[in-house]
Amino acid sequence: MFITFEGIDGAGKSTQVVKLKRHLQERGREVLTLREPGGTPVAEQIRELLLESHNDITSIAELLLFSASRAELMEKIIMPALEDGCDVILDRFFDSTTAYQGYGRGLNLDMLADINRIASHGIRPDITFYLDLTPEDALMRKFSEKSLPLAFESEELDRMENSGLEFYQRVRAGYHAILEAEPQRIVMIDALLTPPEIHRKILSNLHNFEVTSDGKN
Amino acid sequence: MFITFEGIDGAGKSTQVVKLKRHLQERGREVLTLREPGGTPVAEQIRELLLESHNDITSIAELLLFSASRAELMEKIIMPALEDGCDVILDRFFDSTTAYQGYGRGLNLDMLADINRIASHGIRPDITFYLDLTPEDALMRKFSEKSLPLAFESEELDRMENSGLEFYQRVRAGYHAILEAEPQRIVMIDALLTPPEIHRKILSNLHNFEVTSDGKN
Repeated sequence: MFITFEGIDGAGKSTQVVKLKRHLQERGREVLTLREPGGTPVAEQIRELLLESHNDITSIAELLLFSASRAELMEKIIMPALEDGCDVILDRFFDSTTAYQGYGRGLNLDMLADINRIASHGIRPDITFYLDLTPEDALMRKFSEKSLPLAFESEELDRMENSGLEFYQRVRAGYHAILEAEPQRIVMIDALLTPPEIHRKILSNLHNFEVTSDGKN
Repeated sequence: MFITFEGIDGAGKSTQVVKLKRHLQERGREVLTLREPGGTPVAEQIRELLLESHNDITSIAELLLFSASRAELMEKIIMPALEDGCDVILDRFFDSTTAYQGYGRGLNLDMLADINRIASHGIRPDITFYLDLTPEDALMRKFSEKSLPLAFESEELDRMENSGLEFYQRVRAGYHAILEAEPQRIVMIDALLTPPEIHRKILSNLHNFEVTSDGKN
């Protein structure tokens, strides 16, 4: 199974990735967890370049760099793992591109759909868990929690403070639009629930998915 | 005017770029000459990454990296220069992507058209000079000339020897197909002519172009 997690930073994706991985492993499954951008030597170099050039890169070039990293990860790691019967859990995938670059920054959505299809080799997640959180609540969490997971998006909350909340409100609206377009793939979960509650919801949705897609897997 | 040069390595593009630049400058025009990939801090880093990772990168990731560099160069350098009334001469542009990655490596041509349009911000050259040379003649030139211009493609002739000529025959066939599809933009010139002869042909085509497009420029 190919499972992705989505949501703005602070929504608790990494916590849920770890919990789900452990659960699947306990059931005897082989599980690979990954995060974008990165994951191959070339993709890690692209990641560094994106981090370094954050303030001095055009939107389209940034999109194409993210997509190049995704294409590498897809072809060299994810596709072989899925073929070997491994479950793959990915912290952010092309829905992030659509939500951030499309709805957030205003890049053309048709163009993004083309690029996303190319970079992902036409492969879509079996199921996507979207942890829904308002930017206001994300900021609240930042100030109430001492340590945030060290992730590529660790600067995101700082930027959220600086650039105002409008951008992240557009991103959230984007996630809602994606959900509306593909309700069969995407499961929205309230990120204000406790981590164990979220985990339970994830498992029950996963169970439903496995039952209804039985015979395919 | 936005002018591009195309052709396999060894066809004499760099020589003609220099000659044309000098000619236009003598006529009092401001001329910017550029080569891909590169040209902005981010694009130069992408260039290094492409050179380093040459043997260990997927075709799609390579395509997207080239395109990211192109998007940077386009938005930060070429578009502002054209708006300032500067002439821009580019040694290779999206026709190289179509010929090498599409016809040479077999990537889907519709996908390449999408990516090329995105990376170039929908801007097409006013005129493209394609210097036509068989791979066999390119290799002959290599052995008869001591020094080749130090360019990104300087390894190309080595690879041509190693990988056999079939790939470069497909690339050349690709250039011919592009020419057939857009005869109004692309001018094919026999690369076996002497450099001064090629230069004269370029100038006469440029003159025709300026006459027929008079009033637009």
